Amino acid sequence: MNTIYLDNNATTRVAPEVFEAMRPFFCERYGNPSSIHRFGGAVAAEIEAARRQVAELLGARYRDKNGCATEIVFTSCGTEGDNTAIGCAVAAAKGKKKIITSAVEHPGINHYLENLARRDYRIVRIGVDGRGRLDLDAYRAALDGNTALVTMMYANNETGTIFPVRELCRLAHEAGAFFHTDAVQAAGKLPIDVDEEGFDFLSISGHKLHAPKGVGALFARRGIPFTPLLLGGHQERMRRGGTENVASIIGLGAASALARGNLASEAVALRRLRDGFEQKLLATIPSISVNGDLENRLPNTSSVSFTDIEGESILMLLDQYGICASSGSACTTGSLEPSHVMRAMNIPYNAAPGTIRFSISKYNTAQELDFTAEKLVPIIAKLRRMSPYWNEK
Amino acid sequence: MNTIYLDNNATTRVAPEVFEAMRPFFCERYGNPSSIHRFGGAVAAEIEAARRQVAELLGARYRDKNGCATEIVFTSCGTEGDNTAIGCAVAAAKGKKKIITSAVEHPGINHYLENLARRDYRIVRIGVDGRGRLDLDAYRAALDGNTALVTMMYANNETGTIFPVRELCRLAHEAGAFFHTDAVQAAGKLPIDVDEEGFDFLSISGHKLHAPKGVGALFARRGIPFTPLLLGGHQERMRRGGTENVASIIGLGAASALARGNLASEAVALRRLRDGFEQKLLATIPSISVNGDLENRLPNTSSVSFTDIEGESILMLLDQYGICASSGSACTTGSLEPSHVMRAMNIPYNAAPGTIRFSISKYNTAQELDFTAEKLVPIIAKLRRMSPYWNEK
Repeated sequence: MNTIYLDNNATTRVAPEVFEAMRPFFCERYGNPSSIHRFGGAVAAEIEAARRQVAELLGARYRDKNGCATEIVFTSCGTEGDNTAIGCAVAAAKGKKKIITSAVEHPGINHYLENLARRDYRIVRIGVDGRGRLDLDAYRAALDGNTALVTMMYANNETGTIFPVRELCRLAHEAGAFFHTDAVQAAGKLPIDVDEEGFDFLSISGHKLHAPKGVGALFARRGIPFTPLLLGGHQERMRRGGTENVASIIGLGAASALARGNLASEAVALRRLRDGFEQKLLATIPSISVNGDLENRLPNTSSVSFTDIEGESILMLLDQYGICASSGSACTTGSLEPSHVMRAMNIPYNAAPGTIRFSISKYNTAQELDFTAEKLVPIIAKLRRMSPYWNEK
Repeated sequence: MNTIYLDNNATTRVAPEVFEAMRPFFCERYGNPSSIHRFGGAVAAEIEAARRQVAELLGARYRDKNGCATEIVFTSCGTEGDNTAIGCAVAAAKGKKKIITSAVEHPGINHYLENLARRDYRIVRIGVDGRGRLDLDAYRAALDGNTALVTMMYANNETGTIFPVRELCRLAHEAGAFFHTDAVQAAGKLPIDVDEEGFDFLSISGHKLHAPKGVGALFARRGIPFTPLLLGGHQERMRRGGTENVASIIGLGAASALARGNLASEAVALRRLRDGFEQKLLATIPSISVNGDLENRLPNTSSVSFTDIEGESILMLLDQYGICASSGSACTTGSLEPSHVMRAMNIPYNAAPGTIRFSISKYNTAQELDFTAEKLVPIIAKLRRMSPYWNEK
């Protein structure tokens, strides 16, 4: 049985080109970039090349006199970038005790903020409407001179809804606050330009854009004091101790270059596939709805609520056909409760539990999506027949 | 020109068998272990298998009812393990404000402790003698009921000197303190048994034992409250947020199994190679000394001081022959000062600057070491002719 992988917001396949770029750095070019000998030094040069590739994907134009994109710090994952960014901003904004965020952030933001809340920080969570759009009035009202940081995701992992981050950043700066965006889901799918958009911090994760798991990057604007999360050696210009994850950093660079080269054309192709899939579902399955801001969504993400049934059962039956999807973030799997994102959007009680996220990549085909849409018809019908809540209208 | 890599305490080649074990997890088995579908779930099972392999290398025998070695937490590097262990111990030892360590620890320990010193903690650094052996009397005198944690490395990265960690741990426990050991250099080279030795925390790094860079593991004994360093999703049983670095974790498991299977025979082979190399140097080059505890050293490490010349020049000339060695830890490269380890050992002012660490692995051959020893004779002679301090005796 073939796998039909429609869970690309959870993780992606490493692109074969990316794997080929990484391969020499395991058994052949295995030097430590901090070493004084050429065998190590040559690896250090490759890391700087990868750093430039990431900087180019993100629009970080600053280079130091050696040509290094010093505003990019490599991390071990999106969560590390998120945690580090918040830690830096809070330390740099000495004395300010308010942090503004949204009600639909990733656990890498939420859990870190919960921790700060126990240390005297006031966390203000701005709500969203039924389409996942931020309440801008509430945001404006919350901003004040005591705001250390605004952290708002670029695009939501469950619905794909894109926040107006450029405008949110502008307003944060007017209030004298730092601005961080978790761009884990946006990077590689949307054009990002940290210099034009003005962010102070932005975090990405490799494995969401066809680089391997276990590597990420944090953009941290120069001039803002940096507070390292990992304290050790002098790596990453004293901003992250620990020997560099060389092969994966090379992979993140290669994946960034690949994504940047094909961003616009891939977005068109993904949107076409996704929209065709949604139209097929809407035409063949009654009582379903597509979640999120339909005008302003990641091109690859489709969140669909099937009323009166459980998402977990849908996933199990899809899995019988080798079709991989998810009920929400992989990072909160295991809970039967509707996700905090669905709750924040006030998705009705009979629709939220039956919400499935389909997230596609350039490796998916129209045939795979057609097959999935076809199989969903009997799956949903069967589960509804078994459901005590379902009444054929 | 071939590379002769004698810098294996800085980093190692990924073993080809390890790379083969990792390979499917990039482009084929790329699922997210947290996903509900089988494509992800099968990866989660492989991670648990790797966790057991690491546990077996370290002698961590506890398994939960599902057979999981829950005392092992995967990290992104040795530094993360070191930082996390100290953070956990300090939080668990509520109110106690003293931390005892040695004067020769790795930056992953030192920099974290310097940070704690700014937060009201008292850091006591126990000195070493000229052979790098810990001052046990000073250690016993420092231990008291206010000691939260003792953190002492298992074996020194520069000299290979092995600390009596079992005894140090026993004394720490008598005083009611937690005990952590940075076993980054020991793991895979020495037999370790956390259950017999009694450690509360032990950290290792993959890339020192032929696994890739960017992955490590922390042993954290069950029953001690765990304070995560990275706050995000539910991964690693809520002890480390962030999607698992799947391929590298599989690699660390494979490298652990490989090291465990060959530990005793490899140690004999390494020691024979290393001792032969040192004997050759001592027989052919005047005014040199071998550093560290010669009775109690890692089998692969040779720290040699060449009096009256600079280590950096020796390394440069070795590099001309493709020979890679180092003047100390790769994590502190760039400084011309003798390392903190050499200073703690009171290596004489005319010997410390000319100290070179040769660290070998199973991939080195007697031919490589013979070639290196031969080339060192004219290199040292040439540098001494140029040295204002050298007087042929």
